[in-house]
Amino acid sequence: MTDTDRAAVSLDDLPLRDDLRGLQPYGAPQAPLPVALNVNENTHPVPDAVADEILDDIAVALQQVNRYPDREFTTLRASFAEYLGHGLDAQNMWAGNGSNEVLQHILQAFAGPGRTVFGFAPTYSMYPLLAQGTGARWAAGERQPDYTITAEDAAAQVAAADPDVVLLCTPNNPTGTPLGIDVVEAVYEAARGVVVVDEAYQEFAPREAPSALSLLEGRPRLAVSRTMSKAFAFAGARVGYLAADPVFIDALRLVRLPYHLSGLTQAAAVAALRNAPTMLAMVDEIVGQRERISATLEALGYAPHESWTNFVLFGGVSDPAATWRALYERGVLIRDVGIPGHLRVTAGTEAETTAFLDALASIGSAS
Amino acid sequence: MTDTDRAAVSLDDLPLRDDLRGLQPYGAPQAPLPVALNVNENTHPVPDAVADEILDDIAVALQQVNRYPDREFTTLRASFAEYLGHGLDAQNMWAGNGSNEVLQHILQAFAGPGRTVFGFAPTYSMYPLLAQGTGARWAAGERQPDYTITAEDAAAQVAAADPDVVLLCTPNNPTGTPLGIDVVEAVYEAARGVVVVDEAYQEFAPREAPSALSLLEGRPRLAVSRTMSKAFAFAGARVGYLAADPVFIDALRLVRLPYHLSGLTQAAAVAALRNAPTMLAMVDEIVGQRERISATLEALGYAPHESWTNFVLFGGVSDPAATWRALYERGVLIRDVGIPGHLRVTAGTEAETTAFLDALASIGSAS
Repeated sequence: MTDTDRAAVSLDDLPLRDDLRGLQPYGAPQAPLPVALNVNENTHPVPDAVADEILDDIAVALQQVNRYPDREFTTLRASFAEYLGHGLDAQNMWAGNGSNEVLQHILQAFAGPGRTVFGFAPTYSMYPLLAQGTGARWAAGERQPDYTITAEDAAAQVAAADPDVVLLCTPNNPTGTPLGIDVVEAVYEAARGVVVVDEAYQEFAPREAPSALSLLEGRPRLAVSRTMSKAFAFAGARVGYLAADPVFIDALRLVRLPYHLSGLTQAAAVAALRNAPTMLAMVDEIVGQRERISATLEALGYAPHESWTNFVLFGGVSDPAATWRALYERGVLIRDVGIPGHLRVTAGTEAETTAFLDALASIGSAS
Repeated sequence: MTDTDRAAVSLDDLPLRDDLRGLQPYGAPQAPLPVALNVNENTHPVPDAVADEILDDIAVALQQVNRYPDREFTTLRASFAEYLGHGLDAQNMWAGNGSNEVLQHILQAFAGPGRTVFGFAPTYSMYPLLAQGTGARWAAGERQPDYTITAEDAAAQVAAADPDVVLLCTPNNPTGTPLGIDVVEAVYEAARGVVVVDEAYQEFAPREAPSALSLLEGRPRLAVSRTMSKAFAFAGARVGYLAADPVFIDALRLVRLPYHLSGLTQAAAVAALRNAPTMLAMVDEIVGQRERISATLEALGYAPHESWTNFVLFGGVSDPAATWRALYERGVLIRDVGIPGHLRVTAGTEAETTAFLDALASIGSAS
């Protein structure tokens, strides 16, 4: 097709849904900078020994890639249950191409047109988009100035909003803030709808911090979602998952596309989970870099928020756009998440973290 | 969790959407039979040399699997464009985890609540489910008794139904029926909405048969979807794709989840497409078995329908459930697609096809 043909048509000429008109595709700016600390990836590659084993399992899966994959991804679900513990088994598990797809399945089953999805802002920026994408209304609750929420306050807000789905991100993105499981318990009691605890960053929390997984028994409206993108260094493989009562899983089966998880994805994830201790060996190192970032930011006069994740949100930035740009020009990509006076940075390898801290220091101290 | 806990809760106890109550998960019955000819897979494995090359490319992708994949899957889109020809380039291409996801993206962008999706029944059984899943209404048009449709009739039915999205499956599943591109042209002229030509089985059509790809230029509301599941023997890898005007692709970017295609999927598909001639070498063999099935079915007194796909729908079955069961007991799995007096069988390898034909003959001839 020629450029002339293309110029002749615009998106306005297509019979697009009215509610999509004027929107822009979601996604962080992508730029090939030497130090990319903008999307909370695990910047440590998968260890070679694990990569070899993953490849061996994929080789086996390729032998039958002409056939549709196991629609129930039974082996993978058993692997997730074993990894999570808490007395879970394969019946309790679900997975998708990234936790976004898992959340989409939940919203398709329990939200959708005429229903409301609720979360405490600021929180994961995909939540409103996932709600709108399934036709549901997004309702934002409030946090304290330090982004914490008390159980009492959370329950009162949920009771008042009366949502069909509550999304609790803990530790929270983009703030890093943990949420006590007392908050989850109180929200569950206050809610008529389903309650989803998004623990995408849970592996970076203190070991002794309880997971909402410990609350699943006897709470069929509760689900706990996780991802392999962060601690497992598997963002490129797109594997999110959740644990819930088996009837909750049955609901998701009604809305998933058949064979939504490829045989190669299943094989890769099973092999990675079999090597969980090795895959997670980087977590302590990343947590160490996170603490170093927080301490150095404070020394530079910024105001880092407490983080139980692999990133740090910091305030005290007089002109976030200018600081973001100055870092960009020094080869360091971080994220302006739209919170006034704040920027967010992922804890990278020691070298990447050093590059970020040196670049920031070279710009001058905080306002 | 104990069985007692589980027994205490049913799906009715969860706040499921009302429109999902009572539904069953979609999916063909899965059974581990020696001869599985029920879901129109390519029963020939990927050739070893190609599998090795795919594995090499996946090994490279694994080195950066800790990073999110290319959200725009640019290399893969260029590979699809090169494979399809017709003057297409990467800007014209889109892909998803199976063509179901590609169709879902289209319906999310152009159908959804309050809108109508139209197709000529009987056709691909996922269409109504995809429509309902995105909140749209499904409207079924009619075919001639031999499942063909004339351009004039198709245009009149589309004009009367005035749908937002028309789905034209050609060659059609589950009937195998080709649809002339004159029908596509007429439907496009008659339609206000977008027109999707689902060419999942196009590679099994006669070489000289024109593809709707030849109609894309100057028709921005037209899209042609394909899949790697059939001719490419890649059902397990979940790769569907489509070609359309670049502005049509822009519309799909508004509804896709970010990073919906994994880095491993992208690598595997690119490597397979680079080996397209080898991957497609089985097509002629499969077409040969399809013709053998049709000829033998006729000799046995059944009424096979003309097929341009890798399967044959045949009538003259007095009791489809009984015949299906008798074949099942002989280790051969085919599909009862719900058309009275009919069954559908995939053309397998020569040995699988022989097993099916022998088993059918052993049951006795047609009614």
